[in-house]
Amino acid sequence: MDAVTTLIEYLKFPSVSTDSNYSVGMQGARNYISGQLEVLGFSVENIKTNLHPILLAERHGDPEWPHVVLYGHYDVQPADPFERWSSAPFDPEVRDGRIYARGAADNKGPTIVHMTALQRVLKKHPNLPLNITYVIEGEEEIGSPSMPKFFDDYAERLSQADYMLVSDTGSPSNKQIVITTALRGLIDVEIKVTGAKVDLHSGIHGGAVYNPLQAISEICASLHNTDGTVNIPGFYNGIAPLEDWERSQLDRYPESLESYKELLGVSSFAPCGNLTPLEAVRFGPTLEFNGMGGGYQGEGSKTVIPSEAFAKITCRLVDGQDPTTIQEMVIATIKERCPKQVELTVRRGAVAPAYLVIPPDRSNTPKKQPLALANAFRCVATAITNNFEKEPIYLREGGSIPVIADFKQRAGLDAIMVGLFTPIDNLHAPDESFDLELMNKAIATFEEVFISISNL
Amino acid sequence: MDAVTTLIEYLKFPSVSTDSNYSVGMQGARNYISGQLEVLGFSVENIKTNLHPILLAERHGDPEWPHVVLYGHYDVQPADPFERWSSAPFDPEVRDGRIYARGAADNKGPTIVHMTALQRVLKKHPNLPLNITYVIEGEEEIGSPSMPKFFDDYAERLSQADYMLVSDTGSPSNKQIVITTALRGLIDVEIKVTGAKVDLHSGIHGGAVYNPLQAISEICASLHNTDGTVNIPGFYNGIAPLEDWERSQLDRYPESLESYKELLGVSSFAPCGNLTPLEAVRFGPTLEFNGMGGGYQGEGSKTVIPSEAFAKITCRLVDGQDPTTIQEMVIATIKERCPKQVELTVRRGAVAPAYLVIPPDRSNTPKKQPLALANAFRCVATAITNNFEKEPIYLREGGSIPVIADFKQRAGLDAIMVGLFTPIDNLHAPDESFDLELMNKAIATFEEVFISISNL
Repeated sequence: MDAVTTLIEYLKFPSVSTDSNYSVGMQGARNYISGQLEVLGFSVENIKTNLHPILLAERHGDPEWPHVVLYGHYDVQPADPFERWSSAPFDPEVRDGRIYARGAADNKGPTIVHMTALQRVLKKHPNLPLNITYVIEGEEEIGSPSMPKFFDDYAERLSQADYMLVSDTGSPSNKQIVITTALRGLIDVEIKVTGAKVDLHSGIHGGAVYNPLQAISEICASLHNTDGTVNIPGFYNGIAPLEDWERSQLDRYPESLESYKELLGVSSFAPCGNLTPLEAVRFGPTLEFNGMGGGYQGEGSKTVIPSEAFAKITCRLVDGQDPTTIQEMVIATIKERCPKQVELTVRRGAVAPAYLVIPPDRSNTPKKQPLALANAFRCVATAITNNFEKEPIYLREGGSIPVIADFKQRAGLDAIMVGLFTPIDNLHAPDESFDLELMNKAIATFEEVFISISNL
Repeated sequence: MDAVTTLIEYLKFPSVSTDSNYSVGMQGARNYISGQLEVLGFSVENIKTNLHPILLAERHGDPEWPHVVLYGHYDVQPADPFERWSSAPFDPEVRDGRIYARGAADNKGPTIVHMTALQRVLKKHPNLPLNITYVIEGEEEIGSPSMPKFFDDYAERLSQADYMLVSDTGSPSNKQIVITTALRGLIDVEIKVTGAKVDLHSGIHGGAVYNPLQAISEICASLHNTDGTVNIPGFYNGIAPLEDWERSQLDRYPESLESYKELLGVSSFAPCGNLTPLEAVRFGPTLEFNGMGGGYQGEGSKTVIPSEAFAKITCRLVDGQDPTTIQEMVIATIKERCPKQVELTVRRGAVAPAYLVIPPDRSNTPKKQPLALANAFRCVATAITNNFEKEPIYLREGGSIPVIADFKQRAGLDAIMVGLFTPIDNLHAPDESFDLELMNKAIATFEEVFISISNL
């Protein structure tokens, strides 16, 4: 089967991890990809979890061979709203050089890129001197809740490997590939302030009680400085200054302030401290309000002083910030600034560290890097340049894939992340698609990569 | 029929003005009270409106006689949640000296107090030299939308009268009657701020855009000073300082800071500028947030930067503040303080002026008051003292009854407001009730009032 046919078959399984109505689709996708791995000569373990099993596949030969871990996920986002799709989300359709289906770009297309490249390489070199461990989980779209237990049981085995190859990040277009060098971490905090025991009539009682909406506004308004930086003591401690090579890599990124403004639909950007807006979304930490509410939510007016109000806050973190420390800093600052007339309750949500890897030959003060990783970076960059006719851009990404930092923390594995989806792929949205030209070039790239990172 | 039986019959009509399913109940209540007024010798006009007719009843004799306007409303609040009533809301029941039904206190009980008193007085003095105009509307509980048109057509006729008697306010208990000397005005403003054209991924775009929830927090947090006063330039202009007699009247009010705290369920009060909390809710203007929202409202976390956020704001106003001016001040201040990176839209809601009347012999600098009004105040106070064995307290009220200020503005009529419901009457709530001991004493009080304000 050619790559497109393989991908089409894979995309037909509606593997929506968040919805138990799709358990048959989850099983189908898992069995399909498990079968593909077995055809490639992998021994596949189906590791039970509380929800969707993790596939752990191994092609191991001489322990002296280089050892790479590939990571992907067989689950997809829900497809609704179905009516906004031009073709059915689980009935893949090729139109104008793209394949349309839920999961086409995130993450089934990139997985088939890796597998097809492996298939072609192993056909020519059945004894390729490369140990490969393939981890494909089924809960990435719901926050990878089973991975901590997986690391408890398998981190030691995984730590035998040299590094990871991952394609679950983006590039600006099918002409320009990005090697993602960092992912932001995340902390989640929700606060609730409570005033009077019930909602009060604002005429009869207005003037005597501290309005919880006023309290939550005052707390939230205090959390940024006028230059856009986060106003929490110690928040920026430990963050290394941005290096010139990172700025010049970003300069190669095909996006201007004007085109970005248009994309967002804003007339001007927020103040971003000493970063530009394009830097701020990649290199800086943030504190954002994701939701806030209290009191009357309907149309028109209702003269009530609400009993309570809430705010949902998340921070994106960068290398050097410890998520648990930052979460406690945020909470301590909020506690200190909360008016004493209202009661504060805090929900501590998830914490996930940032991930950063410095490519070789880039930093003035490089982190000590194993030779295998440094060489692999060079192999990947060369293969990309050969096949896409442009050097890759090394760029940090603003989003978070907590499991990548977990592979580093739990198994000591750094990741070389080759971005294979583009801004027009509609990830998590209707009409998700994957670019076939990019797919073909990426397969050729990874063929070259697998050969050059082996001991052949 | 005795007063209680009359009230029971009146309460059986489910006159819920807001719900068109109750139009038969509205008609029933209207016809019933119209019939009662005719029995008393009034000529009754049924004035058509867009919704519920207004009853305008007149008992006019010699134009030289004193002329009083009585005001009330025959509509009631909805009764739901029905399951929380101990007896059916439209099947009145007398228990432990109280009559339980929707509308018992607000406003059918007080209306029957006035009518029964009139009935008894007119029985003894059929030729009582007192001109009486009775206005009973059917849309008070939905904001009196037909009253402006009513004033257009009838203000001139009403302006022939000397003053009004109204019982649609409260007293602390059946032992202590309050004459309400002021009602706060109201302005309503809703603001919306818009950032990016759609909700954004807080990882991919966090750091570059001004979060509308941050903008709305900053705007709202700026609207109060730390001492609790409203931070809008000019907001307090024109407000006369509180006089000693008002403070000493409040001292007689049977509520302590401790008992008020317990009622509200708060551990401490908001800072109230130079007023005490019990003063602030009656004598001071306020700016309150009645509702606020934006972004994710469900459980847990969703890492979104919302496209928009809103805040619903109302101010309670006191004498000296022009509502339209204050509304424009609030809007201008918000416009000035809104971060320029977000777009602001404003909904101008209702405006209603405060109402204030100074009882005779109270102020150092009394407003010039017609003799008839001053005398009537003295008559009412004496009748209350005779029947309740305690002098009334003259006290401002924090709530708003815009129609009272309208009677003043449109027809030049001041109101003597005798509070006949108490905090345990459950207005607008399940198990609304009216105190029968208070009812009997109030009927005797108004008998005395009608005689003493006439030329008899």
